[in-house]
Amino acid sequence: MTTESLDNVRVATRANVYFDGKCVSHSVTLADGTRKSVGVILPSELTFKTGAPEIMECAGGFCEYRLAGSADWVTSGPGQKFGVPGDSSFDIRVREAYHYICHFG
Amino acid sequence: MTTESLDNVRVATRANVYFDGKCVSHSVTLADGTRKSVGVILPSELTFKTGAPEIMECAGGFCEYRLAGSADWVTSGPGQKFGVPGDSSFDIRVREAYHYICHFG
Repeated sequence: MTTESLDNVRVATRANVYFDGKCVSHSVTLADGTRKSVGVILPSELTFKTGAPEIMECAGGFCEYRLAGSADWVTSGPGQKFGVPGDSSFDIRVREAYHYICHFG
Repeated sequence: MTTESLDNVRVATRANVYFDGKCVSHSVTLADGTRKSVGVILPSELTFKTGAPEIMECAGGFCEYRLAGSADWVTSGPGQKFGVPGDSSFDIRVREAYHYICHFG
């Protein structure tokens, strides 16, 4: 099941723009204070660093990702999630737009 | 005053990507069913067509815009708004990211 919307949230009006716009997200705060972001990665190959642990949930499109220390690229599509440890990194490559929800912590 | 967030809303998790990613937005629905979007335009010069009338509200950065039929470029910055008639168009040029809220109708 793909998560099509996040309900009853606060959304920040300023976007987060990374890698010259190859990744754009908006920050979201749930009613209980939990923070997430909704974003899109455009065709590119990028490396993201994490502070807090993250779970990336696909809301549309596809990506391939490779966690730090792994040799393997793994495909993630609609409804699928992958976790990234804190203070780590992952490579991601996208051929079509990859839409995601980022869950922290 | 700049609108920093939209509260108690539903946000779509799939982004709207226009002009090869020069404009990325997320659709938002208020509790009363009103639809808006929050987005960002990256450095570029673009022409947007409208269906419904729109009000563009700046949430950060700056743009210059020129309405259809006008010769004049006008600057719009944080907290400022401009209206665009329905079934019309406007040119916009952005040197740094222009963050916006789009109000319809």
